Amino acid sequence: MKSLTIEQTKADDKQYVLHSWSKQKNLNPKSISKAEGVFFWDENEKRYFDMCSQLVYLNVGHNHPKLLEEFKQIGEIPMAAPAFATASKSELARKIIEKAPDNMAKVFFTCGGAESNDHAIKIARMATGRYKIFSRYRSYHGATFGAGNLTGEGRRFMVEPGIPGFIKFDTPYLYKEVIDFSSEEEAVAFYLDRLKNQMLYEGPESIAAVFMEPIPGSNGVIIPPKGYLEGVRELCDQFGILMICDEVMTGFGRTGKMFAVDHFDFEPDMITFAKGVTSGYSPLGGVIVSEKVARYFDENTLMTGLTYSGHTVSTQIGCATLDLLEEEKIVENAARAGEILAQRLDALLSFDSVGQVRHIGLFAAVELVKDKATKEPIISYGMDYGKDPVGLMSKFVSLLSENGFYTYSHESSVIIAPPLIISEQELNEAMDIFEKVLRNFEQEYLFADKTLTVK
Amino acid sequence: MKSLTIEQTKADDKQYVLHSWSKQKNLNPKSISKAEGVFFWDENEKRYFDMCSQLVYLNVGHNHPKLLEEFKQIGEIPMAAPAFATASKSELARKIIEKAPDNMAKVFFTCGGAESNDHAIKIARMATGRYKIFSRYRSYHGATFGAGNLTGEGRRFMVEPGIPGFIKFDTPYLYKEVIDFSSEEEAVAFYLDRLKNQMLYEGPESIAAVFMEPIPGSNGVIIPPKGYLEGVRELCDQFGILMICDEVMTGFGRTGKMFAVDHFDFEPDMITFAKGVTSGYSPLGGVIVSEKVARYFDENTLMTGLTYSGHTVSTQIGCATLDLLEEEKIVENAARAGEILAQRLDALLSFDSVGQVRHIGLFAAVELVKDKATKEPIISYGMDYGKDPVGLMSKFVSLLSENGFYTYSHESSVIIAPPLIISEQELNEAMDIFEKVLRNFEQEYLFADKTLTVK
Repeated sequence: MKSLTIEQTKADDKQYVLHSWSKQKNLNPKSISKAEGVFFWDENEKRYFDMCSQLVYLNVGHNHPKLLEEFKQIGEIPMAAPAFATASKSELARKIIEKAPDNMAKVFFTCGGAESNDHAIKIARMATGRYKIFSRYRSYHGATFGAGNLTGEGRRFMVEPGIPGFIKFDTPYLYKEVIDFSSEEEAVAFYLDRLKNQMLYEGPESIAAVFMEPIPGSNGVIIPPKGYLEGVRELCDQFGILMICDEVMTGFGRTGKMFAVDHFDFEPDMITFAKGVTSGYSPLGGVIVSEKVARYFDENTLMTGLTYSGHTVSTQIGCATLDLLEEEKIVENAARAGEILAQRLDALLSFDSVGQVRHIGLFAAVELVKDKATKEPIISYGMDYGKDPVGLMSKFVSLLSENGFYTYSHESSVIIAPPLIISEQELNEAMDIFEKVLRNFEQEYLFADKTLTVK
Repeated sequence: MKSLTIEQTKADDKQYVLHSWSKQKNLNPKSISKAEGVFFWDENEKRYFDMCSQLVYLNVGHNHPKLLEEFKQIGEIPMAAPAFATASKSELARKIIEKAPDNMAKVFFTCGGAESNDHAIKIARMATGRYKIFSRYRSYHGATFGAGNLTGEGRRFMVEPGIPGFIKFDTPYLYKEVIDFSSEEEAVAFYLDRLKNQMLYEGPESIAAVFMEPIPGSNGVIIPPKGYLEGVRELCDQFGILMICDEVMTGFGRTGKMFAVDHFDFEPDMITFAKGVTSGYSPLGGVIVSEKVARYFDENTLMTGLTYSGHTVSTQIGCATLDLLEEEKIVENAARAGEILAQRLDALLSFDSVGQVRHIGLFAAVELVKDKATKEPIISYGMDYGKDPVGLMSKFVSLLSENGFYTYSHESSVIIAPPLIISEQELNEAMDIFEKVLRNFEQEYLFADKTLTVK
């Protein structure tokens, strides 16, 4: 195709495109004129650090030459429907199983994270013969009806009235917990006891699965307290419940290890993935299932499917992406850069507005507060879906953007998740911008004695 | 990536890939060694007419050189998340609106058909403030939880217990109707009266939308009786209900016109699409919404979204596909070839086993019967999801395949939906195979006085 001018792109966008999660009227979307590595440039040739990897997927960075090169090979592996065996689908499934926890055996491919969760729910119900599905408040699993019903925040409300049998439990979020636990262990014991009670009251024999983001992403990179995930695993084992980890954001290196679960001492029964598997260069997602789940479907029909399960182009780009992670030691870089990011974030705690910083690899959030002693948030839960009535967080994110640091926020947390290829120097430059903007934001807006008027 | 050998492809597939809608144990998937136009060759260099365009998506045929060429340009339009305006997304949205019915205004992009239906349900609920969703028995809309709940056959059961508010009504299927209507008009009056009653009993003020495949595809290309769809439109207008047409299979030329609705005298409020928009070369789908629906979201937040809404690569391939439809007059070819197909199919009615043939453009089905007078089917509804206990239809489809005619069946109907680029000669050759196989099938199996043993 001939590329449109920026003006035509914006005019057609305004006239013809419906944008997600937005009122359309006053949208003024940016356009990217060029992009490379951790940077993109807007239509005014202004450069941005892409500090959220678009939507936490562009893990190998913008316009990676090896992936662009891979697109030139499209056609060499013939395109085929799911019923066929294709080289790229076979190879990618094998590569994923080689990288996944030891108990994992097979992959069911989809085109994205939400779909992966929808199909994973069905797989869990089939494999267990049970119908109830546990998931957590403060989670986001996608916007289709299955994934939406898993979701534990306001983005679920549009798929209600809900599907029978979807039950929510709490995410340990110690920073905001009203109970003053003396230790992480005590907190874990509390949360596990509550979960166990809830399972008992719901009837464990009817619970197919517990879905959880091991580290909730969209909701603010909430790191679980030590021993918590292992404790959930034990409860699942006790009651014959499948434990399913949504690694759509965290999978394929984001946390400095291949999967987030690799940081802990347990194996889930299933892992859902998307984003990182192709770095977003082609739509792809999937469900990794354990040996035990895989064996069930040897003799029983897998009653689910989709036209593009194992799409030839997407799986080919997936293979190239996973090769790249190895060739360029990208996961190792995420771990190394993650240490620098951790130092820079921990240093932010000296700011009056920084309540908590949370980080693992290149997956991080900075939670801002109006008052450090009371932990009064800038945006409380319930003010945040679809609107930011106070306007302070929008202001902060737009100040970051004006200064060349592109990312987004959720409630009072700012997400920091740059491409995994980021260099030490780039990361330091970006965090210098963050500090400068935060200082200015505190003085000019947050602690200034004036009322903000933001639409 | 380096392509695997056929042996390695099959071995890895068996070990690592979960296949849709199947028991995994005895699967022996074909592998495609090369492909071009309407043909593909398996691992033994055997050639097949692809008479179902894989899963009714490869509308421009296998390995179209212009689409392969387009992949070489990937990277020239920078990749961007949904919040950005990109040239390929803008251009494709405009192209789609230009081709869609006159009342259509904007496009919300997804990665496939099921997802499109999930998001369309949400859009309809938001735009109307109502929650009930009507759809039909004998329909297939996808396997995610929203699309699955729309689906009116056994592939829905895996998403049950169902979502509150999803209501089913009957698809007019006159060939199997027990009432002996004197005319199509009489039948339409009957079906519309029943639908109106059902709407009244459900409370029209709570009904957001009626979803329908204008021509149900998976369930056997069931052509609506004259005036039926227009009548549904009138009922929707009467009660303020949105009419949403699932054109995932039929969209972008399959029926010999751009959309199936173009054959009729009404405009839907929304159209969901996927497959044909890229000919399946890259995962893409979407929801086309009317001016009226689009305007609602000017002032109200569109509370849905997905990471790959308007994916840069997929929309670029979509633009190239729609250009190709025009440059090579592919929709016109579908109409012309459709006339030849119609003649060949109508001629099949002389066979004792052919109960009905149904066709529109290159979208067709042949319904087989054991007894033409009683219309006794080979497979009745309820015998068919996940299994073919008698084995006769499987036998027929595998005989077709052995003879180089690749397609699939549903209940007693064989789907015929070749790439839209098929030539008159290719179509006649393929249909010669079909006739030969059908003659053999009747003599050797269907009307033979022996019991089939098929696993």
